[in-house]
Amino acid sequence: MKVTVVGAGLVGCLLTCYLARRGHEVTLYERRADPRRAGAERGRSINLALSERGLDALRRVGLDQRVLEGALPMPGRMMHAVDGGLTFQHYSADGRRAINSISRGDLNGILLDAAEAMPGVEVRFDHRLTGLDENTGRLTFETASGPVEVDKAQVVLGADGAFSAVRTHMQWRPGFDFSQSYLDYGYKELTIPARDGDYAFDPGALHIWPRGSSMMIALPNPGGSFTCTLFWPKSGPGSFADLDTPVKVKEHFTRHYPDAYAVMPDLLDDYEHNPVGHLVTVRCSPWHIAGSETVVGLVGDAAHAIVPFYGQGANCGFEDCVELDRCLGEKGDDFAAALALFEQRRKRNADTIADLALDNFIEMRDRVASKAFLARTKVEHALERALPGRYMSRYELVSFSTVPYADIQPRINRQRTGVAAAAAGVLAAGALAVRSLVRSRR
Amino acid sequence: MKVTVVGAGLVGCLLTCYLARRGHEVTLYERRADPRRAGAERGRSINLALSERGLDALRRVGLDQRVLEGALPMPGRMMHAVDGGLTFQHYSADGRRAINSISRGDLNGILLDAAEAMPGVEVRFDHRLTGLDENTGRLTFETASGPVEVDKAQVVLGADGAFSAVRTHMQWRPGFDFSQSYLDYGYKELTIPARDGDYAFDPGALHIWPRGSSMMIALPNPGGSFTCTLFWPKSGPGSFADLDTPVKVKEHFTRHYPDAYAVMPDLLDDYEHNPVGHLVTVRCSPWHIAGSETVVGLVGDAAHAIVPFYGQGANCGFEDCVELDRCLGEKGDDFAAALALFEQRRKRNADTIADLALDNFIEMRDRVASKAFLARTKVEHALERALPGRYMSRYELVSFSTVPYADIQPRINRQRTGVAAAAAGVLAAGALAVRSLVRSRR
Repeated sequence: MKVTVVGAGLVGCLLTCYLARRGHEVTLYERRADPRRAGAERGRSINLALSERGLDALRRVGLDQRVLEGALPMPGRMMHAVDGGLTFQHYSADGRRAINSISRGDLNGILLDAAEAMPGVEVRFDHRLTGLDENTGRLTFETASGPVEVDKAQVVLGADGAFSAVRTHMQWRPGFDFSQSYLDYGYKELTIPARDGDYAFDPGALHIWPRGSSMMIALPNPGGSFTCTLFWPKSGPGSFADLDTPVKVKEHFTRHYPDAYAVMPDLLDDYEHNPVGHLVTVRCSPWHIAGSETVVGLVGDAAHAIVPFYGQGANCGFEDCVELDRCLGEKGDDFAAALALFEQRRKRNADTIADLALDNFIEMRDRVASKAFLARTKVEHALERALPGRYMSRYELVSFSTVPYADIQPRINRQRTGVAAAAAGVLAAGALAVRSLVRSRR
Repeated sequence: MKVTVVGAGLVGCLLTCYLARRGHEVTLYERRADPRRAGAERGRSINLALSERGLDALRRVGLDQRVLEGALPMPGRMMHAVDGGLTFQHYSADGRRAINSISRGDLNGILLDAAEAMPGVEVRFDHRLTGLDENTGRLTFETASGPVEVDKAQVVLGADGAFSAVRTHMQWRPGFDFSQSYLDYGYKELTIPARDGDYAFDPGALHIWPRGSSMMIALPNPGGSFTCTLFWPKSGPGSFADLDTPVKVKEHFTRHYPDAYAVMPDLLDDYEHNPVGHLVTVRCSPWHIAGSETVVGLVGDAAHAIVPFYGQGANCGFEDCVELDRCLGEKGDDFAAALALFEQRRKRNADTIADLALDNFIEMRDRVASKAFLARTKVEHALERALPGRYMSRYELVSFSTVPYADIQPRINRQRTGVAAAAAGVLAAGALAVRSLVRSRR
């Protein structure tokens, strides 16, 4: 089949690899210039935490090692208290499993190279989708040299992100459910540069400055620097709107983030010039439509954009590629049937991780700082060591397994029942022992 | 102020009357042709049930009597059982209050005449909004003779319905929350014609054929006919997709709607040629944005489209006009301030009626047929007669009052507490009486 993929971001490129491997001819359109030449926009480097779902998807097309070469493993989180006190916590019970810090730009470059190298793949940059008619099969793209038309597109897959042009064309079909929901928080990127080639903080951790209603995080980059991200309210006290002068910003950082402030020489310049990004959750249904000429489908953020607080946006999008590939296999590469099956299996998982990601914001900015949270994690890790493979925390099931997102909570409920039964068993055994002891003493 | 209103439907026309009365110059743009000349599309006559909120809004600009002249009062609902058995139920305890059947086309014609007659109002048909930039104040309309541009628009109000072009231009502003959600049900209009100038059924009722998972309703028109609307699933057994041949349609009607089938000579033709409409709920926030040149706001369905099952879509939109007029008065006709206040007061009410309308579908198609429902209504009406002005049912508070939608459920809860206290008082008094009786007999 001739397949059109719209969007040469992370998911569009990986999906192209999967489709080309199945023998499809893929044309990959991207509205921006080639990012390998153009570079990232200021304040939009956006580090990712690649975990098992993403790695599994890369592994299946032989890209995992190449990607991991440029990544830094983060086996735990490091919480920074206001007084500079540090608390490190492993993500896994054995302390060995890690999420991996990698720059979006580097990852995209590797995936673009891989997609371009596949047989039957053509990549066209600077092509912005402006028209899509599933009944005539006609696509229109805006380019620097005017509009370009494509006729008789058989399959169009929108991998064009949270503000998907493909989805926008589907939005006005009757029966298309759609929602976009913004947090009252924005984000802004800052930098902690290397100091004589060395890291200002431990590079083997995801750093968090939990401050109750807001937070900062930092992920290590190769070469000694960290990319920091502020997650602050858009308005009100301590918000981006509120902290609008260098004096206020400096005062706020010295009060709330003193250890970071001491290693951020470019803070005021970064703060002034880097944009405030928005945090949106997008849900829609159906993810596919079948016109008389063209089958249209959505994958990744185009189908289910989520907030970044579980580090699962790209991982979930990569897992989409695995699932769609599996569905194509099961349906003999009938895209209409495969896309229907894909949505049936995948929608509930996408809805679940969207909710988990929203919940995890509160956990990261607030709860991780509490003693109760630290104690709970300790108990969970002890249980995991005591019941290896039979007890796993939610964080581990999300980040270090490929258990479908929607099956995680039911599994946790079963684990709890199991632990409660085991605990009851222990108590009962203890009671019996006491009883026999008492009897033997009589 | 020079105000641009987009959409000359019911709400756009009434809003224009209110704004012109405040002394604003209003240009009213409509993408369709003048409906007074063009007439309604086939199967899109759409009868409305005008109730107190709508009438109150019309009364304030002196239009209520003119509208009611063409309306038919429906003081209750008439349920049609499959065996032809009829059950009539008054909407109000005193049997006097009625909702009013009127055709959308007639009502729109009256409101257009009224708007055009106001000083400073200009109406432009066949103008479809294609561009809106709140920072340059430039609007673009597509017309039969090409694009038309308007410069320096100060205030733009979108009254352009569920698929609002004004809202679509707002949708891509960061922070704009939006959802559209469709029911799995569609609707189709049919007709019960007059028989020798007479009505086939009692014209003093809204007729309902509740059939569990689907239903038909009929509203009387002047002249002896009824406009019927089927609300059926889109797919599955008994759906529009399922009943796709005259034989199947005839068989389905003779089995489930025999009394109606007997008086519908044009059924098969209507069924074949009238379109299936969709039922969508739209929610968004904010309803207004302020650019450097232009303030943009949304009213009516453009801000909060709801399903028709509480008969409140137009009534709610008319009430919007009253509230926005009140806010303009309080804010000295500062539109930015008035629109912010309007949303603050009105959003929760719009959200509430959206939920009530969804809930009422289940009530109409299923519960109204049950003995428990009839009994509950009898008890409620008895309470209303016993506690006049102090006890009102939800239906009456929605349809026969202007109590804000969001205040209805809290009021009902208070009423219930009051009734429970009264009942407890009665029981206590009874107990005392019994006690003293027992004592006196000792």
